[in-house]
Amino acid sequence: MILLDQTRLPDEEIWLRLDKLNDVVEAIYALRVRGAPAIGIAAAYGVLVGMKGKVNLPLEDFKSHLQAVKERLFNARPTAVNLGWALGKMAEIVAQFSAGDSAVLYDRLEMEAFTIHSEDIELCDRIAAHGAALFPQNARIITHCNTGFLATGGVGTALGVIAAAHKLNGVEMVYADETRPLLQGARLTAWECQQLDLPCRVMTDSSAAYRMASETIHGVIVGADRIAANGDTANKIGTYGLAVAARAHKVPFYVAAPYSTIDSALAGGENIPIEQRPETEVTTLRGISLAPEGTAAWAPAFDVTPAQLITAIITEADVFRYPYDFS
Amino acid sequence: MILLDQTRLPDEEIWLRLDKLNDVVEAIYALRVRGAPAIGIAAAYGVLVGMKGKVNLPLEDFKSHLQAVKERLFNARPTAVNLGWALGKMAEIVAQFSAGDSAVLYDRLEMEAFTIHSEDIELCDRIAAHGAALFPQNARIITHCNTGFLATGGVGTALGVIAAAHKLNGVEMVYADETRPLLQGARLTAWECQQLDLPCRVMTDSSAAYRMASETIHGVIVGADRIAANGDTANKIGTYGLAVAARAHKVPFYVAAPYSTIDSALAGGENIPIEQRPETEVTTLRGISLAPEGTAAWAPAFDVTPAQLITAIITEADVFRYPYDFS
Repeated sequence: MILLDQTRLPDEEIWLRLDKLNDVVEAIYALRVRGAPAIGIAAAYGVLVGMKGKVNLPLEDFKSHLQAVKERLFNARPTAVNLGWALGKMAEIVAQFSAGDSAVLYDRLEMEAFTIHSEDIELCDRIAAHGAALFPQNARIITHCNTGFLATGGVGTALGVIAAAHKLNGVEMVYADETRPLLQGARLTAWECQQLDLPCRVMTDSSAAYRMASETIHGVIVGADRIAANGDTANKIGTYGLAVAARAHKVPFYVAAPYSTIDSALAGGENIPIEQRPETEVTTLRGISLAPEGTAAWAPAFDVTPAQLITAIITEADVFRYPYDFS
Repeated sequence: MILLDQTRLPDEEIWLRLDKLNDVVEAIYALRVRGAPAIGIAAAYGVLVGMKGKVNLPLEDFKSHLQAVKERLFNARPTAVNLGWALGKMAEIVAQFSAGDSAVLYDRLEMEAFTIHSEDIELCDRIAAHGAALFPQNARIITHCNTGFLATGGVGTALGVIAAAHKLNGVEMVYADETRPLLQGARLTAWECQQLDLPCRVMTDSSAAYRMASETIHGVIVGADRIAANGDTANKIGTYGLAVAARAHKVPFYVAAPYSTIDSALAGGENIPIEQRPETEVTTLRGISLAPEGTAAWAPAFDVTPAQLITAIITEADVFRYPYDFS
């Protein structure tokens, strides 16, 4: 499989050829591929990478090896629900295939991975169409992290909505939170806005509240890594503070995500495990120390935004509003 | 005059010898010296640097040259009220000196600069004592930017309070916002906490709200660049968002600053001019691009926190509480 190394953008466009399972796992863990839907797609293709050399095994051996491959991929980013979802889709193919040649099962898995990818393209288009209608003409919109075509198989989730709103009604300004520590907003969203001819200004994450106080902002829109059955949403660290600020300024706060991001097995946000990232992600940047040696850091990857702070959750299936009932 | 170049900390301790007015102006503009009180002290010494070679001029020429020196220093950071305040103190000395040798006036100016410096040491101690009593035992405290001994002539303002609270009651954890874009929290506050043996964790600015939601925080304390007569407070960008988050979590939000930071000529925060910094302060870091070429940024140096979000303003004179009456 081939993917664009997002940790190198915008300086360099490095396309990685990943022929070993280890490399796929590393790419997911190290955020070379990121964004909930893109991780799911990468995991599906990762299954193929891990199984390609095993098609000559007897079916039972093939299946038990596949179980190990799935576990390795799942553990690369356990918080990302799309990872589990995509691996679950692959597992269904395996479960349905009770007898036959391993190579035939491999072909079916390959077809499933292509389906996961192409369905994502379609669902992004539907999310974008649903969300675009929520913004007025010449809107000023704040977004966080990166949720465009780099993060999905299609046009993106939150940034896909913004791009569609721009086509529909014009967008006056996208304010992109830089999104510390990994700067997905400054590096990737700014880059995507350039590709999409969207007017964009990057700002430090801590500027967002003041931007809402000093200028009319028509909406905040973000993606989601995981949504609980009650609408509580785990997303990139900083999302929650942005939602608190939006509420204080009466700015609508939208989440755009595939329906598959909703994890009906989780009653509420308190059940979402929050991954802690290495402290050096905060205290260093591309090998440069930002803090004195020995400085400790608090480095959660995500936070949880309670459902009542979210004006609407935009999926390909529907636009849901608080109180949430996704069934 | 000699000062520690804070833009080089924590990598290097570079002491600058500033013998030219241009160098002092550049050091203030480029934040080599920063923190409201330290800027005031630097400006007072800056007057001496600018006038040292002029003591042989006739008094009237000396005075008119001094006027030009004051203006150059003032324009280096027009938002910093302590800069204007310290220059005003120097101006009073000049006004009182109607006849005599320029060298004698220079000596009086030098004495005034020393007085400004030593009074700051004393007032920091009084602010610290006033503020320390506001925190419970083993408090967990969030702070923003750098407000310790690097920012003042003494023990500091907000961080001076935290250090005093630690001596009085023990502090369990200082959470230091890294404070983008210039990372004063990661670079300077973390460094000062090490010097002071204060337990400290750095976090990205956008983590603060989630920290309040996930753990009991006993108070947020910050410094101030300028306080209006009604208590509205201009401080480092990000302060306002932190105050909004503190209110949403019922966490007390304190401002610690010298009484001279209160500008009674300003009725409210809407009258405080907000300096815009170069966009490259957001889009680059130590020469590294953080965003694609041509990316625009929104880069306010400060924001304004409305008085009603501030639980108390701690000065050397008194601890004031909302609604504020500083007279």
